[in-house]
Amino acid sequence: MSSRHRYTLIISCPDRAGIIAAVSGFIAQHGGFIVEASYHTEQDAQRFFMRQEILADSLPFDAEEFRRRFTPLAQEFAMSWQLSDSAQNKRLVILVSKQDHCLNDLLHRWRSGELLVDIPCVISNHDDLRSFVEWHGIPFIHVDMQSDKAAAFDQIAALFEQHHGDSMVLARFMQILPPSLCRRFPGRIINIHHSFLPSFVGAKPYHQAYQRGVKLIGATCHYVTDELDAGPIIEQDTVRIDHGDTVDDLVRYGRDIEKTVLSRGLRYHVEDRVLVCGSKTIVFR
Amino acid sequence: MSSRHRYTLIISCPDRAGIIAAVSGFIAQHGGFIVEASYHTEQDAQRFFMRQEILADSLPFDAEEFRRRFTPLAQEFAMSWQLSDSAQNKRLVILVSKQDHCLNDLLHRWRSGELLVDIPCVISNHDDLRSFVEWHGIPFIHVDMQSDKAAAFDQIAALFEQHHGDSMVLARFMQILPPSLCRRFPGRIINIHHSFLPSFVGAKPYHQAYQRGVKLIGATCHYVTDELDAGPIIEQDTVRIDHGDTVDDLVRYGRDIEKTVLSRGLRYHVEDRVLVCGSKTIVFR
Amino acid sequence: MSSRHRYTLIISCPDRAGIIAAVSGFIAQHGGFIVEASYHTEQDAQRFFMRQEILADSLPFDAEEFRRRFTPLAQEFAMSWQLSDSAQNKRLVILVSKQDHCLNDLLHRWRSGELLVDIPCVISNHDDLRSFVEWHGIPFIHVDMQSDKAAAFDQIAALFEQHHGDSMVLARFMQILPPSLCRRFPGRIINIHHSFLPSFVGAKPYHQAYQRGVKLIGATCHYVTDELDAGPIIEQDTVRIDHGDTVDDLVRYGRDIEKTVLSRGLRYHVEDRVLVCGSKTIVFR
Amino acid sequence: MSSRHRYTLIISCPDRAGIIAAVSGFIAQHGGFIVEASYHTEQDAQRFFMRQEILADSLPFDAEEFRRRFTPLAQEFAMSWQLSDSAQNKRLVILVSKQDHCLNDLLHRWRSGELLVDIPCVISNHDDLRSFVEWHGIPFIHVDMQSDKAAAFDQIAALFEQHHGDSMVLARFMQILPPSLCRRFPGRIINIHHSFLPSFVGAKPYHQAYQRGVKLIGATCHYVTDELDAGPIIEQDTVRIDHGDTVDDLVRYGRDIEKTVLSRGLRYHVEDRVLVCGSKTIVFR
Repeated sequence: MSSRHRYTLIISCPDRAGIIAAVSGFIAQHGGFIVEASYHTEQDAQRFFMRQEILADSLPFDAEEFRRRFTPLAQEFAMSWQLSDSAQNKRLVILVSKQDHCLNDLLHRWRSGELLVDIPCVISNHDDLRSFVEWHGIPFIHVDMQSDKAAAFDQIAALFEQHHGDSMVLARFMQILPPSLCRRFPGRIINIHHSFLPSFVGAKPYHQAYQRGVKLIGATCHYVTDELDAGPIIEQDTVRIDHGDTVDDLVRYGRDIEKTVLSRGLRYHVEDRVLVCGSKTIVFR
Repeated sequence: MSSRHRYTLIISCPDRAGIIAAVSGFIAQHGGFIVEASYHTEQDAQRFFMRQEILADSLPFDAEEFRRRFTPLAQEFAMSWQLSDSAQNKRLVILVSKQDHCLNDLLHRWRSGELLVDIPCVISNHDDLRSFVEWHGIPFIHVDMQSDKAAAFDQIAALFEQHHGDSMVLARFMQILPPSLCRRFPGRIINIHHSFLPSFVGAKPYHQAYQRGVKLIGATCHYVTDELDAGPIIEQDTVRIDHGDTVDDLVRYGRDIEKTVLSRGLRYHVEDRVLVCGSKTIVFR
Repeated sequence: MSSRHRYTLIISCPDRAGIIAAVSGFIAQHGGFIVEASYHTEQDAQRFFMRQEILADSLPFDAEEFRRRFTPLAQEFAMSWQLSDSAQNKRLVILVSKQDHCLNDLLHRWRSGELLVDIPCVISNHDDLRSFVEWHGIPFIHVDMQSDKAAAFDQIAALFEQHHGDSMVLARFMQILPPSLCRRFPGRIINIHHSFLPSFVGAKPYHQAYQRGVKLIGATCHYVTDELDAGPIIEQDTVRIDHGDTVDDLVRYGRDIEKTVLSRGLRYHVEDRVLVCGSKTIVFR
Repeated sequence: MSSRHRYTLIISCPDRAGIIAAVSGFIAQHGGFIVEASYHTEQDAQRFFMRQEILADSLPFDAEEFRRRFTPLAQEFAMSWQLSDSAQNKRLVILVSKQDHCLNDLLHRWRSGELLVDIPCVISNHDDLRSFVEWHGIPFIHVDMQSDKAAAFDQIAALFEQHHGDSMVLARFMQILPPSLCRRFPGRIINIHHSFLPSFVGAKPYHQAYQRGVKLIGATCHYVTDELDAGPIIEQDTVRIDHGDTVDDLVRYGRDIEKTVLSRGLRYHVEDRVLVCGSKTIVFR
C-alpha cells in the first residue's frame, strides 16, 4: 500500500459488460492515476464488485467534487458506492472486557503508525485496563453492565455516536450485543470470535474444541449481525495443537491467533478492502 | 523413524507413579535399546499412555517371547497393550468410489516404499479404477451397491476378513457404512472427511463451506464410529481460499488437503502412533 | 476460474495513467465481457502489468482478429503482450529421472482433467518409469546421458521442438541444463528445486538443511536461467520439521512439498498468471 | 504444561542402553511423579538427550537434595545435566533499540502471567522506550553507544551480571555484539533475526528478500555465537507475501512473524525445552 494521499473508490452493482471501462474511463479522462485495482463478480448474485485506489494529486479536483461528478455514472450502473480519502482517518471505538491481548496488540499497531485510525475512546465493562489505555492518551470509559444491561447498551450506542465512531471493534468484549444494536450499525461492528466458525458457536469455544479433540484451533473476525456468531466472515486462521495441550494451552495459543486474525481483518476493513455480499464478504487484499 | 528391525510397544493404563520406570526397567534388564519413546497423561481420564520403539536385535528373544514375559507386568498395572513387529506389515484394504486422488496418492506412497503396508485388495462400488489398480498388481474387486446395499456391506466385511485386513481405509468411498459394520471393527476403519470437522458434517461440505463464506477449508482423517463424522479425529489441516474461488476451486484445493491429511493420519495409524482415549486420540508423532 | 471458452490477455508496458481505461475501453467497445482482471505496477522498474480473461463468445471476432485489432493500441503504449485461447491447450514436455513423485502427481492432475495441457511426451535419462507413463497413453522417450551429455541435451532440445513443446518441466530431472539450452527457451523451462531458495543452492539441499539445523524445509518452483537455482521464483512453500527428523524424513516431507509447489507454480504458468519482471515474477493468482 | 510446582531435569550424555531405566528408576524409587517426559538420540553425535518434569510435592526432598542424590548416577553415565525449580523464575534482561514490537509483545506476555520470568531491567541504546517500560514498573537503562562502543558493551555485560541475569534477549537490538561478549555467555543470549536463516544473513534482510523475489519471508530465533547469524536455531517460521507487497509491507508482515517466533523460542528456552548439540538444537515442545 502506498503511503501517498489517495482516494479509495469501492463499488458494487449488477454485473454487465463495460463497467471497468466506464469507471476507468472516467478516472483516465481526468488524468487520474490508479495505484491499485481489484475486481470480482459474485456469480450466484450476478453482482460485480470493484475497488480502486487513485492518487489524489493526479486529479484536478477534491473528494467532494469527485463524488459530485461520479454520481451520474454511478446511477447509470445502479451502483452502491463510496469514496474515501486517505487524509481522513476512520474513527474506531474499541470495546473490551478484562482480557487485554487484543487491545494491547491494536494499541501497539496504532501508536507505531501501522493502524492508521483515530481512537476517540475505549469502552469497558470493567475498570482494569484504565491505566494502560490512558498511558496512550486515549480516554477510557467504564460502563457498568452489572445492574441494567439494556441501559448500558443504550449508553454504549450513545457514546459511539457522540464520539463520531465509524466502526466499533469488540476486542474480546465478552458480552452479547442486543439485536437492536446490531441492526442499528450494519457492517460497522467487528467482532473476534475465538473459534474457527461455524465450529463452536457461543460460549467457551476452547473447552468445546478440547472436548471434541480437534487437531487445530482457530479464530474468526466477522461483522456482527443479529444472529449470534453468524455474521459475514472477514478473516480466519488456524493453529496446530496436539493431545498434550490442556484447555489453558488452547487459550494461550488462541490469544495469538485471535490477535493476528483481528488485526488483519480490521486492517482490511479500515482500508475499505471488505465488501459485503449477503452473508459473505469479498476481501480485496 | 529408523528403518531397522524394531518392536513397537503401545500401552495405556490408569495413571500412577512408577510406570515408566517399570517398563523401561523391564526393557533395560534384557539389554533392550529404545530408539523412540513417548508418554502422555490424559488428565480428565486419569489415564497414562506410552509408546516405545525398541531395536529387535538388542533383545535376546523374539516378539512372541517378549509378549509372554511382559504379561505379568502388564497385569500388575492393568494395562491395555500391544506389541507389533516392524517385520510384519499391516494389511490395508482400501475402499474407493470413482474419485481417485486419494487412491493415486496412497498407491504411489506404497509403490515407492514410503507406506510400509500390504494391500491385499482394493474394493469399489464402481469399475472405473480397475485398470489403474491392476497396473500395480493389486487385485481390484467390484462390489455392486445399486441393488442390495445391506448385502453389499456384508460382502465387504467378508472380503475384509478373507483378506486378513488389519485396517480398512475409506479413500473417498462416498458411502455411509452401516452402524453394525462400524461397531464390528472399532479403531480399524479410517475415513477422510472433506471438511474441517465438526464444521460441515454430512454431504457436500464444500458447498456448505462456500455458502457460509469461510476463509479456510479443511479435511479430517478420523476413525469411523456408528455416529456419522463424529469418530475420534486423527489428523486435520486447512488451506486458505478467498472470495474468487468457486465451489469447483474449493473441490480442487480440497483434493490436495484430503490427500495430505489422509496420508499423514494413515501413517500415524500404521506406525502405531495413534492411541484412542474415549472420543479423542493421542498421536505420538 | 471459469471453464467457459476464454481469451487471456497479458500485458506489460511502461507505467502511465490511462492504460486500464484504454484496454478495458477497447474490450468494452466490442462488447467483451471480462471475467477476471488483475493489475500491478512494479515501482522500481516503473512498469505496469495486467492480465484479463474475456469470455470468447462475448466478442464478435476470434483470437486472430483480436490480435490484429489490438496491435495499434499495444504499439501506442509500447506493450509486450500475448493473447491465448483457452480452447488451445499448452503443450508440456516433462523431464524426469528416477524419482517419480512429481511425475505421479502431475499425471494424475492431467488425467483427472485438473491440469488442462497436452503432454506430447515424457523424456527421461533412465528407463524406469516407462511402464507408468505408457499406461497413460503418453510416449516415453529414454535419452542416454551416460556417454555424451552435450549430445543428449541437443537431443532433448530437438525432441522438445519436434513435439512442439510450449514449456519444459523438470520434474526432479536431477541434471543441470547447459546455459545454452537455458538461454534458448527463456521463461519456458520450469524447475522444482528441493529447498527454500536462496537457501541451500545446488546439490543435496536436504543434507544441507539437516546440517544447519533449520526448523522448516521448503521447495521452490522457478524458471530456469543460465545461473544455477537463481531464476525468477514462481512459487515456494515450507513445512515444519523437528530435531527428531532424519535426512530420510526430510526427503519424505520434501517430496510432498515439492509436489505441491510444482503443481501450483505450473498451474499459474499454464494459465498465463506469471509475468516476469527482471529476476522476479508477478503472479496473478 | 502444568502450573503446579515442578522440577525440570534436563540431561545429555553418550548414548547407550538403560539410561531411561536408570533415570526413571531413580525418580520412581523416591515416589516421584513424572508429568512430562521427552527423549531424543542424536545419531551423528551418538548422544542421548532427555527432559523430565517431576511434581515437586511427590518427592520427599527439595531441589538441593535431588541434585546431591542424583550426582552419582549422573557421573556413571557421564551426563551434562541441570535441574531447575519452577518456583524459581529465570531472570531475563531485554535489550532493545527503537523498534518496540517485540518488546511490547514480551512485556504483555509477562504482565499477563503467560511468560513466567523476572525482568530485572530493560537496556537500550536509545531513550525512546523509557516511558513504556517504566509504566510496567521495570527499570529502564539507557546505555550510550554513539561514542565508545566497546565501553558500552562492557557496561552491558556488567549490568547483566549485576542484575543476576540468566539470559539476555536481543529483542531487535540492531547492534552486533562483540565476539568476546558472545563467548562469555554461551547459550544464554537469544536473538531474533528478521529472515529465514540461512537466507539473508546480515543487514536489511527484507530488502534482500524483496530483491530476490521470494514468495515467503521468515524470522529466526537463535542463540548468539561469535559467528554472525550462525548460532543454533531455536525456532523459525515463514509467512506468505506476493508481488504486490513493497519493502514496507515486508517489514510490516515481518514484525508479526518476528514477535511470534521470538516469543515461542523464548518460551522453549525459559521452560528448559532447548538443548544444544553442536550447531543444532533439540527442542522438546
